[in-house]
Amino acid sequence: MKKSLIALAVLAASGAAMAQSSVTLFGIVDLGVRNVKQGGQSLWGMSKDGINSSRLGFRGVEDLGGGMRAGFWLEGALTSDTGDGRTTGAALDFQRRSTVSVMGGFGEIRLGRDYTPTFWNHTVFDPFGTNGVGSSVNTYGGAVTGATVVRSNNTIGYFLPGNLGGIYGQAMIGLKETKAANSASDYAGFRVGYQQGPLNVALAYGQEGTATATGSNPKRWNLGGSYNLGVANLIGQYTRATAPGSLKLNHWMLAATAPVGPGLLKASYTRSDYNGSNDANQIALGYEYNLSKRTALYTTYSRIANKGGAAFSVGAFAGQPATAPGGKSTGFEAGLRHSF
Amino acid sequence: MKKSLIALAVLAASGAAMAQSSVTLFGIVDLGVRNVKQGGQSLWGMSKDGINSSRLGFRGVEDLGGGMRAGFWLEGALTSDTGDGRTTGAALDFQRRSTVSVMGGFGEIRLGRDYTPTFWNHTVFDPFGTNGVGSSVNTYGGAVTGATVVRSNNTIGYFLPGNLGGIYGQAMIGLKETKAANSASDYAGFRVGYQQGPLNVALAYGQEGTATATGSNPKRWNLGGSYNLGVANLIGQYTRATAPGSLKLNHWMLAATAPVGPGLLKASYTRSDYNGSNDANQIALGYEYNLSKRTALYTTYSRIANKGGAAFSVGAFAGQPATAPGGKSTGFEAGLRHSF
Amino acid sequence: MKKSLIALAVLAASGAAMAQSSVTLFGIVDLGVRNVKQGGQSLWGMSKDGINSSRLGFRGVEDLGGGMRAGFWLEGALTSDTGDGRTTGAALDFQRRSTVSVMGGFGEIRLGRDYTPTFWNHTVFDPFGTNGVGSSVNTYGGAVTGATVVRSNNTIGYFLPGNLGGIYGQAMIGLKETKAANSASDYAGFRVGYQQGPLNVALAYGQEGTATATGSNPKRWNLGGSYNLGVANLIGQYTRATAPGSLKLNHWMLAATAPVGPGLLKASYTRSDYNGSNDANQIALGYEYNLSKRTALYTTYSRIANKGGAAFSVGAFAGQPATAPGGKSTGFEAGLRHSF
Repeated sequence: MKKSLIALAVLAASGAAMAQSSVTLFGIVDLGVRNVKQGGQSLWGMSKDGINSSRLGFRGVEDLGGGMRAGFWLEGALTSDTGDGRTTGAALDFQRRSTVSVMGGFGEIRLGRDYTPTFWNHTVFDPFGTNGVGSSVNTYGGAVTGATVVRSNNTIGYFLPGNLGGIYGQAMIGLKETKAANSASDYAGFRVGYQQGPLNVALAYGQEGTATATGSNPKRWNLGGSYNLGVANLIGQYTRATAPGSLKLNHWMLAATAPVGPGLLKASYTRSDYNGSNDANQIALGYEYNLSKRTALYTTYSRIANKGGAAFSVGAFAGQPATAPGGKSTGFEAGLRHSF
Repeated sequence: MKKSLIALAVLAASGAAMAQSSVTLFGIVDLGVRNVKQGGQSLWGMSKDGINSSRLGFRGVEDLGGGMRAGFWLEGALTSDTGDGRTTGAALDFQRRSTVSVMGGFGEIRLGRDYTPTFWNHTVFDPFGTNGVGSSVNTYGGAVTGATVVRSNNTIGYFLPGNLGGIYGQAMIGLKETKAANSASDYAGFRVGYQQGPLNVALAYGQEGTATATGSNPKRWNLGGSYNLGVANLIGQYTRATAPGSLKLNHWMLAATAPVGPGLLKASYTRSDYNGSNDANQIALGYEYNLSKRTALYTTYSRIANKGGAAFSVGAFAGQPATAPGGKSTGFEAGLRHSF
Repeated sequence: MKKSLIALAVLAASGAAMAQSSVTLFGIVDLGVRNVKQGGQSLWGMSKDGINSSRLGFRGVEDLGGGMRAGFWLEGALTSDTGDGRTTGAALDFQRRSTVSVMGGFGEIRLGRDYTPTFWNHTVFDPFGTNGVGSSVNTYGGAVTGATVVRSNNTIGYFLPGNLGGIYGQAMIGLKETKAANSASDYAGFRVGYQQGPLNVALAYGQEGTATATGSNPKRWNLGGSYNLGVANLIGQYTRATAPGSLKLNHWMLAATAPVGPGLLKASYTRSDYNGSNDANQIALGYEYNLSKRTALYTTYSRIANKGGAAFSVGAFAGQPATAPGGKSTGFEAGLRHSF
């Protein structure tokens, strides 16, 4: 009597009724081994989230009739190599996403904690997503430390409906909940894009009312696009982040993916310029071998070449020496990603 | 293959067999916007739990044959606006309820962490439950700080069976687990009621062995009732809490609900007297608009008028100034409650 | 619409398709009452995990075709008497097990946090498992404090396939992830056994690179076996743990179980010798009465007789006086274990 739940087969068998109202348990466990060389040390260890973030979630949709639907989404991060939640030693929360929505012909209104629109281009227009040693954000984060770079609490979001001839978009505000000058949830931003045939392009802009290490009220915009030639998908993105009087970041990436056998070959080149100097270049190469739609073996190699005082890392282990200023950081990982 | 779980439709289709043994994933996400005016400041922000506590739970029942059943219930609170568990920054636990039961013709024996009987009248006989700016408990909690006001650890509970001609009831003891004078789980209480036709009335009593800010070994009793006239449901409750030599609280509420369109109009008046002086009055008005049985839009307005040194609040934001002693606190919220 | 999930009945009805790909929610809630006498105090309280560890988990298997499967397993501990996770005051994590696997004719490769092979003989060859007042590990833990006694982070495990004529086995390494001398996940071990007809026997060995209170780099081996006579199952295990220059533990247990009515009678005798002196004997007697395959009532009595400076306990409550050196500790518990 151990099998007390669910089944994909049951779900498939239930047909149309299924689509009307459902609760879904879903997640990803992505684990592997990683080698990182930096700061004069080469270290092997277990890696998590090589190509996708490990997670556990619960979501559902209810058909309200008249084209209207309600839904919820609770999703938390897993530190799979230690059996923890969002971080080592922490338990399961739903900080990846915690929302309730009303959907209809008008689009979707969504309340709660959610991704910021400005984050999406980073992950959508990078063949390595924002995971693993190959991600373009390895050379992005350094001086961009606003609280809402990835997600924001206390948000009201609006999403365009899906029937606008390829145009898609969203807008979000995070409620400050204070009269003080700074709030970790003071965010306003939007994203608008166009996808038709082989082309996909999107622009995002956001600003926040948080003091950061590099200046107050940072602004970020991001343009990403891809064009699928069939034999290969060409991808690029450009990000600019500024904070008055201090930070000016130009960050861009060129990449391509190509189907090879039952898998996908991936390559990218990223360049990160802080305040006008070329601070770091990263090259990344990877391959995903699909055992099924849900399960893949993968391997990734990447190398960051820092310049001047920059010290970006491909993703070191806790306790490993930091990258030397102007030094190199190289990474290799091989792993297994299973979705459910 | 994302939809790996369940479905309401599947459940409905499975018919009678379903009732015999099942595991159920359930929960609520309730989010909205709230304005609170108090201490000279009017502040807007995101609110959670406007009419129901956000939660995630797992429960199940097993048919043991011969009229006997076993069951479990694990339910944790969600701080939905930040993606956290019971409180901001905390992860998911099951402190709302964590129990195992044996049930039969004799009723139910339940072990674990559970609601105290004395808490039930507060929420059952209040049209605003114990949630949001309109709840009568806004003016209750102040000096009543015993550890078991809402729930207790380490409890053994007994519930009467459901076939006693309208009489219902429960008793609970919390095991101290110490020879020390005070224990956070030292509770003993009961609740007994009668529900027939339009009438529902219940009495609860409890005492605990915990030292509180207002005296040791507080005792609480509570009488609640409702009478449904059809066009309106009249509701009232009276609570008395005492701690030897210090606290004497008289707390009462009169309320009514009326079905209006596809929704429910709610109104209440609450008065809270500490040690013989009228410390606070609260008026609350709300409307729930049902999009379905599971999903509702709602709005609530309330105002607390404090007297003397009392400083009750309808539910301020973190960092918002406290209500001035003898001052007013007013709240408004509008939100979306989705159950699953 | 509260019942939004699953059903055992649905699962059974779905037949063969079910076995191919599924996600399963599972768990145990085990609660009861316990009396512990030690240090001059007899104390009653609520006990958890009297015969099985309370837990909540999610696991799944995907059929990849060609005899290959992928799977995940996320399982966390429940402190059921207080509604908490792994420990009182902590929330739900998945430190019991957090793994992803590929399985096939070659066996299973498993990555993540998992039990160490050396732990298995303790629980498999003890009629009281490693739970409750009767467990043989009550007199084991004292000086054996290595981080990987039960589980290890960052592991790569291999399991033999199930078709080797009764031979079973596994090997595991935990990746250090540091150049430092000690790491909490520096483990290497294996377990190999043989099960055929009434006989089951297994040997396990492991060593770790962690400094402990009783010396660095402890080594442990363990031999366990059982022979089922029908009227009774005879069980024994022997464990030796050493840390260079300090600790030398000989720990053995003889036990028997016998089916009596709809339940199981259990008895064990355990002896624990630290560095050559007989430090403690434990006798334990218990009975499990099965209400169903998933649900049982149980009771256990045990007594530890310490010698010299030893002060083992059957499992005291927080705040209860420790066992006096050379003194006795006796325990009784009765509870309800429900699996789902």
